Amino acid sequence: MDDARGSEVMAGWLGKHVDAVDTPALVVDLDAAERNLQRMAEFAAAHGMRLRPHGKMHKSAWFARLQMRAGAVGLCVQTVAEAEALAAGGIDDLYISNEVVSASKLSRVAALARRLQARGGRLAIAVDSAEGVRRLAQAMAPAGAAIDVFIELDVGQGRCGVAPGAPAVELAHLLAAHAPSLRYAGLQAYHGGAQHLRTPAERRAAIERSATLVRDTRRQLDAAGLAPPLITGAGTGSFALEAASGLWGEIQVGSFLFMDADYQRNQWDAAQPAFEPALFVKSQVISVGAERAVVDAGHKSHAIDSGLPAVFALAGQAPLEFFNGGDEHGVLRPRDAGGALPALGEAVWLIPGHCDPTVNLHNQYIVVRGGLTAGVVEAVVPVQARGVW
Amino acid sequence: MDDARGSEVMAGWLGKHVDAVDTPALVVDLDAAERNLQRMAEFAAAHGMRLRPHGKMHKSAWFARLQMRAGAVGLCVQTVAEAEALAAGGIDDLYISNEVVSASKLSRVAALARRLQARGGRLAIAVDSAEGVRRLAQAMAPAGAAIDVFIELDVGQGRCGVAPGAPAVELAHLLAAHAPSLRYAGLQAYHGGAQHLRTPAERRAAIERSATLVRDTRRQLDAAGLAPPLITGAGTGSFALEAASGLWGEIQVGSFLFMDADYQRNQWDAAQPAFEPALFVKSQVISVGAERAVVDAGHKSHAIDSGLPAVFALAGQAPLEFFNGGDEHGVLRPRDAGGALPALGEAVWLIPGHCDPTVNLHNQYIVVRGGLTAGVVEAVVPVQARGVW
Repeated sequence: MDDARGSEVMAGWLGKHVDAVDTPALVVDLDAAERNLQRMAEFAAAHGMRLRPHGKMHKSAWFARLQMRAGAVGLCVQTVAEAEALAAGGIDDLYISNEVVSASKLSRVAALARRLQARGGRLAIAVDSAEGVRRLAQAMAPAGAAIDVFIELDVGQGRCGVAPGAPAVELAHLLAAHAPSLRYAGLQAYHGGAQHLRTPAERRAAIERSATLVRDTRRQLDAAGLAPPLITGAGTGSFALEAASGLWGEIQVGSFLFMDADYQRNQWDAAQPAFEPALFVKSQVISVGAERAVVDAGHKSHAIDSGLPAVFALAGQAPLEFFNGGDEHGVLRPRDAGGALPALGEAVWLIPGHCDPTVNLHNQYIVVRGGLTAGVVEAVVPVQARGVW
Repeated sequence: MDDARGSEVMAGWLGKHVDAVDTPALVVDLDAAERNLQRMAEFAAAHGMRLRPHGKMHKSAWFARLQMRAGAVGLCVQTVAEAEALAAGGIDDLYISNEVVSASKLSRVAALARRLQARGGRLAIAVDSAEGVRRLAQAMAPAGAAIDVFIELDVGQGRCGVAPGAPAVELAHLLAAHAPSLRYAGLQAYHGGAQHLRTPAERRAAIERSATLVRDTRRQLDAAGLAPPLITGAGTGSFALEAASGLWGEIQVGSFLFMDADYQRNQWDAAQPAFEPALFVKSQVISVGAERAVVDAGHKSHAIDSGLPAVFALAGQAPLEFFNGGDEHGVLRPRDAGGALPALGEAVWLIPGHCDPTVNLHNQYIVVRGGLTAGVVEAVVPVQARGVW
């Protein structure tokens, strides 16, 4: 019973003023998130792109359903556990945009493909090797179901993905030979490394290089009678570029919903709609010294792989700088000489450096309607797919 | 139902050979952890120190009970949720070595103090401000129970803690005035920043500075008739130094149980027992390129605040270097020119850079008896106190 005390406490905040939210807590400004979602949905519709938001970011069926209601065609995920969680939460069209090779996970993939097919949905997955295709085919055989398969190309990230051109064509031939249980669905072409290049010019140059590789591979596939039904990819830093290329038909954006301090450090041009911070860690001052205040949020409550959090100043608050205080603490100092420090017990709102791994640290979102000052807790939403794979 | 699929899958590994453990998984080599625990318990006994291991590291009642059986006097924790989880798991003597100031959390503290007292145990907490003492006293008043209170000194870390000397004496006076519901228990003196100084000489110099501050404060407290009953502190990087000082009576070591790649980068001298790696992330190769292999473990499965993981080579495996591949991926390259890459599907064992926040990323430990090559899964242990506060 006591094990889950923290979660029980959070459930008690439902309907309360945001002031009642104890800290550290992962808080979503739902109005801001909905505005972000609306902007992205409008962009996708205006550009004829399928919108398949990436569920690796929020790991939550609640936010996935919000995205489906806004016009998403389905969700991307990165892990089998994410796919299972979103399927259990009512999402019928899921794509694991990653390689899965273990027999035990592939049997879960096959079982999930069968469940989704039985209710009129579908599962898709990525592959980047012949061995991967064979393992997937072996797992699907007893399932009596089909799965859509995208061939992942390495379009510049140097991580997963088959080399563009001939090796991709070879893999497509192998895949086509495994119909009907494996359905050749097209190309996965995502350049994660391009998303956080700081200037629009750098991102444009990176995605142009990706597009050249994709275009060349598509030409070779067309010539081989294996025209890709769909090319899917893109992220929050680059999606307007993929959309403008005429190659991609689906965008897998994730971070736009919540944004983070690292994306805020990007420079943006007018080709892309603007998104606002919607994800916060509410922290609280637990100690005040002569020249510092210490809050109860460290890197067990916000990820620091892409930098420290920014302090989000509410009206009337002096600007503060966040310094690393370890796993459970953050140290605040005034940004300006002589600036005021917050008082003991005062709430301090942080914009995490990186949204995806920050969400991954929490069991629940506290979803607030009406803003961070006057809002009310509208939902306590589980982060279902964290801590399991 | 599907939400918890990953956890159900893990439960199915119980009693199975370690090869059955799918990835990424948080694996404890229990034989190694028990050897580490034995060495620390022997050190504490030989030096007349109370051993109060820090539960912020493992967040798990199972490992806390293991430590109690080895002679620990109780557990330290850093959060209220950790205290609640360990109390629910049978630990009766708990110390929250951190400041808690919110009314809602303090009411949980008071309730827990009452529960522990009712079963013959006790709860302790740290304070570093007069306002903190008043808030704690206010919360304890209706509980009809007592709580032990340590005054936290800033002994060099520059984070929480009252200034040594007169300000600490003043706080002790205030604390004494709140007897009997607040019991003045002594001093919290922990220098987190000293633990990872690389050389024994640097760590010795840092702890000597801390000891000077502690000694001076104790002298002033003695003179005021407020002799501290106990001085508690120390970590895995420095505990032999606190023990040698004659000031500290209790050590709060945490990482020694599991160790990590960052502690392995410390240089050690013979004054301190040696500890071995006991915590691993088992990963698996999901993609192989010309000059790289990619595993399914990124910084959602191991914390990188203190550096990337080291690759733990089993017998016969070529040495590999780990490169950051993002949230869900790690990139491996041979350490030596011309060295072999692991094959698709092959297991790769990682030693996380930092144990505490790595544990915090997982729902379960897979506890293995008999080593990483031939061992068997002896327990699947929940990380109870993660994701809540």
